[in-house]
Amino acid sequence: MTDSFFHPVSGFDVPRFAGVPTFMRLPHLSLDDPRLKDVQVGLIGTPWDSGTTNRPGPRHGPRQLRDMSTMIRAQNGATGVRPFEMVNCADLGDVGPNPADLHDSMDRITQFYDQVVAADVIPLTGGGDHLCSLPILRALGKNDPLGMIHFDSHTDLFKDYFGGTQYTHGTPFRRAIEEGLLDPKRVVQIGIRGTTYDSEDRDFADAVGVRVIAIEEFHARGPEDVMAEAREIAGSQPTYVSYDIDFVDPAFAPGTGTPEVGGPNSFQALQVARLLKGVNIVGADLVEVSPPFDQSGATAFLGVSIMFEILCNLALALGEHSE
Amino acid sequence: MTDSFFHPVSGFDVPRFAGVPTFMRLPHLSLDDPRLKDVQVGLIGTPWDSGTTNRPGPRHGPRQLRDMSTMIRAQNGATGVRPFEMVNCADLGDVGPNPADLHDSMDRITQFYDQVVAADVIPLTGGGDHLCSLPILRALGKNDPLGMIHFDSHTDLFKDYFGGTQYTHGTPFRRAIEEGLLDPKRVVQIGIRGTTYDSEDRDFADAVGVRVIAIEEFHARGPEDVMAEAREIAGSQPTYVSYDIDFVDPAFAPGTGTPEVGGPNSFQALQVARLLKGVNIVGADLVEVSPPFDQSGATAFLGVSIMFEILCNLALALGEHSE
Amino acid sequence: MTDSFFHPVSGFDVPRFAGVPTFMRLPHLSLDDPRLKDVQVGLIGTPWDSGTTNRPGPRHGPRQLRDMSTMIRAQNGATGVRPFEMVNCADLGDVGPNPADLHDSMDRITQFYDQVVAADVIPLTGGGDHLCSLPILRALGKNDPLGMIHFDSHTDLFKDYFGGTQYTHGTPFRRAIEEGLLDPKRVVQIGIRGTTYDSEDRDFADAVGVRVIAIEEFHARGPEDVMAEAREIAGSQPTYVSYDIDFVDPAFAPGTGTPEVGGPNSFQALQVARLLKGVNIVGADLVEVSPPFDQSGATAFLGVSIMFEILCNLALALGEHSE
Amino acid sequence: MTDSFFHPVSGFDVPRFAGVPTFMRLPHLSLDDPRLKDVQVGLIGTPWDSGTTNRPGPRHGPRQLRDMSTMIRAQNGATGVRPFEMVNCADLGDVGPNPADLHDSMDRITQFYDQVVAADVIPLTGGGDHLCSLPILRALGKNDPLGMIHFDSHTDLFKDYFGGTQYTHGTPFRRAIEEGLLDPKRVVQIGIRGTTYDSEDRDFADAVGVRVIAIEEFHARGPEDVMAEAREIAGSQPTYVSYDIDFVDPAFAPGTGTPEVGGPNSFQALQVARLLKGVNIVGADLVEVSPPFDQSGATAFLGVSIMFEILCNLALALGEHSE
Amino acid sequence: MTDSFFHPVSGFDVPRFAGVPTFMRLPHLSLDDPRLKDVQVGLIGTPWDSGTTNRPGPRHGPRQLRDMSTMIRAQNGATGVRPFEMVNCADLGDVGPNPADLHDSMDRITQFYDQVVAADVIPLTGGGDHLCSLPILRALGKNDPLGMIHFDSHTDLFKDYFGGTQYTHGTPFRRAIEEGLLDPKRVVQIGIRGTTYDSEDRDFADAVGVRVIAIEEFHARGPEDVMAEAREIAGSQPTYVSYDIDFVDPAFAPGTGTPEVGGPNSFQALQVARLLKGVNIVGADLVEVSPPFDQSGATAFLGVSIMFEILCNLALALGEHSE
Amino acid sequence: MTDSFFHPVSGFDVPRFAGVPTFMRLPHLSLDDPRLKDVQVGLIGTPWDSGTTNRPGPRHGPRQLRDMSTMIRAQNGATGVRPFEMVNCADLGDVGPNPADLHDSMDRITQFYDQVVAADVIPLTGGGDHLCSLPILRALGKNDPLGMIHFDSHTDLFKDYFGGTQYTHGTPFRRAIEEGLLDPKRVVQIGIRGTTYDSEDRDFADAVGVRVIAIEEFHARGPEDVMAEAREIAGSQPTYVSYDIDFVDPAFAPGTGTPEVGGPNSFQALQVARLLKGVNIVGADLVEVSPPFDQSGATAFLGVSIMFEILCNLALALGEHSE
Repeated sequence: MTDSFFHPVSGFDVPRFAGVPTFMRLPHLSLDDPRLKDVQVGLIGTPWDSGTTNRPGPRHGPRQLRDMSTMIRAQNGATGVRPFEMVNCADLGDVGPNPADLHDSMDRITQFYDQVVAADVIPLTGGGDHLCSLPILRALGKNDPLGMIHFDSHTDLFKDYFGGTQYTHGTPFRRAIEEGLLDPKRVVQIGIRGTTYDSEDRDFADAVGVRVIAIEEFHARGPEDVMAEAREIAGSQPTYVSYDIDFVDPAFAPGTGTPEVGGPNSFQALQVARLLKGVNIVGADLVEVSPPFDQSGATAFLGVSIMFEILCNLALALGEHSE
Repeated sequence: MTDSFFHPVSGFDVPRFAGVPTFMRLPHLSLDDPRLKDVQVGLIGTPWDSGTTNRPGPRHGPRQLRDMSTMIRAQNGATGVRPFEMVNCADLGDVGPNPADLHDSMDRITQFYDQVVAADVIPLTGGGDHLCSLPILRALGKNDPLGMIHFDSHTDLFKDYFGGTQYTHGTPFRRAIEEGLLDPKRVVQIGIRGTTYDSEDRDFADAVGVRVIAIEEFHARGPEDVMAEAREIAGSQPTYVSYDIDFVDPAFAPGTGTPEVGGPNSFQALQVARLLKGVNIVGADLVEVSPPFDQSGATAFLGVSIMFEILCNLALALGEHSE
Repeated sequence: MTDSFFHPVSGFDVPRFAGVPTFMRLPHLSLDDPRLKDVQVGLIGTPWDSGTTNRPGPRHGPRQLRDMSTMIRAQNGATGVRPFEMVNCADLGDVGPNPADLHDSMDRITQFYDQVVAADVIPLTGGGDHLCSLPILRALGKNDPLGMIHFDSHTDLFKDYFGGTQYTHGTPFRRAIEEGLLDPKRVVQIGIRGTTYDSEDRDFADAVGVRVIAIEEFHARGPEDVMAEAREIAGSQPTYVSYDIDFVDPAFAPGTGTPEVGGPNSFQALQVARLLKGVNIVGADLVEVSPPFDQSGATAFLGVSIMFEILCNLALALGEHSE
Repeated sequence: MTDSFFHPVSGFDVPRFAGVPTFMRLPHLSLDDPRLKDVQVGLIGTPWDSGTTNRPGPRHGPRQLRDMSTMIRAQNGATGVRPFEMVNCADLGDVGPNPADLHDSMDRITQFYDQVVAADVIPLTGGGDHLCSLPILRALGKNDPLGMIHFDSHTDLFKDYFGGTQYTHGTPFRRAIEEGLLDPKRVVQIGIRGTTYDSEDRDFADAVGVRVIAIEEFHARGPEDVMAEAREIAGSQPTYVSYDIDFVDPAFAPGTGTPEVGGPNSFQALQVARLLKGVNIVGADLVEVSPPFDQSGATAFLGVSIMFEILCNLALALGEHSE
Repeated sequence: MTDSFFHPVSGFDVPRFAGVPTFMRLPHLSLDDPRLKDVQVGLIGTPWDSGTTNRPGPRHGPRQLRDMSTMIRAQNGATGVRPFEMVNCADLGDVGPNPADLHDSMDRITQFYDQVVAADVIPLTGGGDHLCSLPILRALGKNDPLGMIHFDSHTDLFKDYFGGTQYTHGTPFRRAIEEGLLDPKRVVQIGIRGTTYDSEDRDFADAVGVRVIAIEEFHARGPEDVMAEAREIAGSQPTYVSYDIDFVDPAFAPGTGTPEVGGPNSFQALQVARLLKGVNIVGADLVEVSPPFDQSGATAFLGVSIMFEILCNLALALGEHSE
Repeated sequence: MTDSFFHPVSGFDVPRFAGVPTFMRLPHLSLDDPRLKDVQVGLIGTPWDSGTTNRPGPRHGPRQLRDMSTMIRAQNGATGVRPFEMVNCADLGDVGPNPADLHDSMDRITQFYDQVVAADVIPLTGGGDHLCSLPILRALGKNDPLGMIHFDSHTDLFKDYFGGTQYTHGTPFRRAIEEGLLDPKRVVQIGIRGTTYDSEDRDFADAVGVRVIAIEEFHARGPEDVMAEAREIAGSQPTYVSYDIDFVDPAFAPGTGTPEVGGPNSFQALQVARLLKGVNIVGADLVEVSPPFDQSGATAFLGVSIMFEILCNLALALGEHSE
């Protein structure tokens, strides 16, 4: 049983619409808080979208994710897991980006996550656009390249944009592989679809050994079979999970900047996260929630529901190890 | 063939956007109208949401359901049933609640339905939050406990909230079973999912014999198999149907206060209502439509489409009996 | 390889939110432009909704379709087809209707398409309500009746409305068959559902040999089987494709005036268009996108994604013939 | 004191969000109801927008006006007038238009109002687009031309549109003057502004003696001075009041199809209606409320607030005469 | 100069869209935090709307007010006042209400404010509906009746609703006067307008000496003159400020449940708050912000802008006294 | 009379909702079109918002401005000016920015405007955030510093943000003065208001001689008096006009990222633009329209209405000179 300091506020005590909204109603600690040493999983926001090549907005994602996360309760209805009683979780706040300086922002993010790693806290991030994953990986993967299970409708493996620009939300994993932060042979991308500029990204994936499972294959095989393969690709070594909300069909997740129709439904969206069970997750993110395109918050609510499924798997894994 | 007085206005005569909106464009009768004696099915609104523990709004449900119901036509496209030619239907108006006094409102609702029952009219209700079902059941189930087929993402079987509050939209069926209005062994709940506070509700269900079919089971077995079991549980005795719109996935029914992702799609939402055929329905409700969370009315349109499927089954049953 | 003049602007050169929005970022030519002779497929808007019997709005469809079409890229992610390198495509602008004179508008549309046909351009139209299809067919089918593959939740085969009105968006194909523009034995309608006034339309379909595949059959058999039958019905002769966006479930396509719940999802919506491969398409439309009911543009984005799938099939067919 | 049958439902008895929404919660009578003979003022909807040259939607106006009118209470806060105790008012329902036949619709409206006039009921209409005023005037002004006080940002005096089309929402008063339904010397138009095609309408106004008060003059002189002139122009003879909601600035009335910025605020919008006191009003309309452009209903609420001010003046005038 | 612990986060350091949103980016303290003793002004949320007789939603007010308050900066642009350097301010969180028990909720609020008063903290509250003011006044006015400057479009002085219900958002100040919490002779109500049920509230005001300044008088005299009178009525003794956002015209503040058109604009809305300078304010609230009716947050932003003006006056008053 | 090639499409010929939307329905020319030499005023979009420190979105501004601009007609209703018959106007398209590289984007903008200046075309720009003005001024003011009349709620004169970042939408005119592009003694800023970080910007203004007219002064003196002073400050030398839409109160212009309440209304918004008559305008922009915060387009419609007023003044000035 975990320290009650780290238990979320219950909706039976304080209604879910009340109170300052932290991630899942957890206590909010800054990185210099002495209680940081007791935290096992840290929920962190990266409110930044300067890598966005199309419609901006994910800088507002963390706040809306926190808002909708107050509707998450303590127990997983499908599995019965009660993560907050298994691991100490806290909201570690947002990385403050510099919206007018892309490289300064990436540095700020990496520095923040360096501290998180140093404190032995597993980060569960709410983005931000997908470029956020790169500076996070620079902290998490700097010693040994990580595997990655990546849910998305895009590969984000492009070489560059706009005549040579290297850093956009369409390039983070190209950079991460080039920088040795990811081991391409242990990377799998699931749900890829939509029109494309060309096949340059897919050619790169093929060349370096990234496994790409397009949506047609996903729908044909089903979540369980696909995830069995994904777990095998990731293996037992440290693995990052990157979940772009545009993996899900835009009817279920309209609030995103570059939607692609024809994706999984919300049940499948949860299922694939639940099927991460057993993966050696050292960090995870849920990115590209863009509130200006979904003022109702439905996308953010799906996003935090997915984050909760990932958190349950983190709790199971950490719980096991600590027993 | 029914009395033409009770036939809805046709969109071929008056366009569907025109006219004062009553439920399905039926005539509007008050309870003291002498024609009440000819009515077989009464469509009634319970615009009340004081039991809501989270996001309010269902008090606006009946009006929006009426508005969108003017797009419902005379014939069921899937089955060919033409209910308005089989049974006399009317809009019996709304129960006027007291939004600032929970118990006064419950009394008003029960008194209204007492009159409906006395007039031998089968009520088909558009809510209102789910607490509305309790005062309705107090009128319908006061002599003999009813069976119930209950579509929802929540069990609504909790003991209490906020330190002892007995009456909320999370407790109506706990109360109804305690008050002897429902026979728990003839109650089935379908579609349960989402995070939960704890298992107190499920433990109660198990203890008293309520059958709970969680969403994972629903998706695995499919609507036809699940509904076959549901019909068997309800048996041939009088049964109430309670349909919380949050049974349906929020992509199809965003307008509700406590959504849970991962639910059935709209085809399945209709299917389960259609598969009530043969059940001895003595009353039904469609609750938790919350217009402030879906100004487009899509949720209300789905809601009245479901109500129409239920009505067709009522018409088939009543038609049979009257032949 | 096609003339680079006809290549769309790339999002790698100019971001997709920038620039005057033409269909798929293609060059905009008027009908009197000398380059018209080089165009093989013309994308055309028919911003007109005077046939609408319910909720208006499709007159705004072409502009929103163009807007969202700037998110379409050059290559089909599922098939690899790059249509703009296979056939010369251009945006031929809108037919300017007369919103206060129904017959004048129909004449204007037919005259416009007469010129398109004369220039040997295959029209791919973005509507407008479904009555637009009639004046288009008067241009395309005037010599020999065409076959038609028709995706819709309604048959649009009604005799008349409002006491004898012959021309509404519920009657175009009744008129087209009567006028000899369509060969009913080569017409198939897919996805029909929802409540109906009566069976007058279905009786007509049966009488003249139109094949109607209701949604229950569609869901039972699946897209591949249904489309195999559709291709067989259309045969190898010239065929028109008419795609009403309300074919798709309103969760995926909320922006339409007469939605019917229980339809296909967005993956199936693309699939059926992709499965038109091999059909001898001489023209196609995507109609009933109604921006006032979907200000987010999600419906229009799905609409242009479908248009792109149709375009790819046109390119494959034309490419073959020209090789 | 009026017949209590004609008193609206009080929000103290039934909350304002409850009940089938009629205009101002008045009883709903059809034209063949025997109680029609007791009605002095009839509130009527004309849900029709086929004259709209730009963005459609006012066909949905009457329903939303009724919906928001349930927030209107019994007493005028500024003047203390209690109209429902002074004159018998009823909701006479909607004229059912033919949305696909402009002339049929105009005939239906005139026939409806012929009956209203025959029953000696003063009509207070909620539109519909501004072309609705023409068929209404054909009933009201057929014997003697009426004066008119007209609030609008457009003159609606154009000769024709789209190469000769005579009947649009930009031409009703040109036609009405030509048909002898209005006496141009007793017509005043207030609030005219916005860009224009040309001055053809203003030249006509000058030629026949219509007084046009542009917005610059309105803002310079203020509502009281302008309305004093308006009352003088209308004189003591029968006068029609036509109030286009786009008279008001779009910040206060966004829900309209052809907004023009720079208009009066909502206080002035009420003030000018209140300053109609003493005018011999024989009919009035409030038109161009377009719900698709204001889903919140703010425009409709302002619209019914204006209608209530007009109704108070009708009550004062009728009350006086009947005393 | 105040303790830097109590300084808000600057948007120059962390962008305003980032971070867990507290009121004005102040530190969040619970009532049992030892630093409470240093707090001079406490910003508090009362997320409760069970007194609402019409359209609910203000329970969501505090969260949206906090969200939009992150756009408030450190210095008053009009006066140069920098309140956070003059007084120690903190966000004291929300009172957790019981949404299903009206009296329990009122008790919870009073108990919370009893502690605030005991700690010598001046409360600045973000509601919640207007019934919230009553339990607050029970804490603040229990020893000596307070004066009150009240901005609103309604008097909230009604005797009861729905046949005897004493506690709604239309009755708080009737109760407060009856309970001796307010001295009616030192109460002024500004901006009253809209239709009314009757004059029962105004008769009571007249009888007990409450000064009511209707909107017509407000517009005629202007903010400065009206506020001079208000300050005189309040005098130098302890005074409460209650600001219902529906005081402001709904074009500027659409997000409220019972709007009345014809109100002040946003400049005047700020002006009247600024003109509270010199009043002996012992507590203030800003109530009836209802996010479901304004998802854009514009109303909440105006609300917090008004709260900031009040805070500046509190700072000036406290600053003076402490010097 | 101008070349008819440059006349906009009339809504009497093609309805205003039809056609590919260019600025004010003008012909669309690229910079390499030979007809550029005949253009006198070029309407240009700068869809870029990388300088935004708060809520992004203005990159979508030009497209929505074009969309709404199709409701602008040929003649100024207030003044009778018909600009398109006085000067040749064209839509010169958008500058394609690099959304992931701030400096590259500024260079692209300056290069584009260098060509515009070289072609002797006066640019009328639709932004984009306010940082767009800096690279434009680098083209227009490179030889001699310009005067500027600047409408805004912010000075945009700050030194830097986020610890030294020089280029944001809060700094363009600080940079422009430092770079010698503007003559501070001929710069006037009108409408300044809202909370501020500190007075660093105002101190700079005072130091270099920029005249700042805060909103309190604006409301006290009125538009005519203020604009007389503004014209005097600008004098007869070349002057730039920069109009930030957040100058206007957010009730009239909600679609902007950093709104400040208490601003001018829409009539005043037009008035100040009209009162630029006589100023020697060499370029103008209308910036900070952010469609994600106003999906209705009301803000963009006000924006293009203001642009039209500026265009009329440009036409008057150019017309005079060419006569």
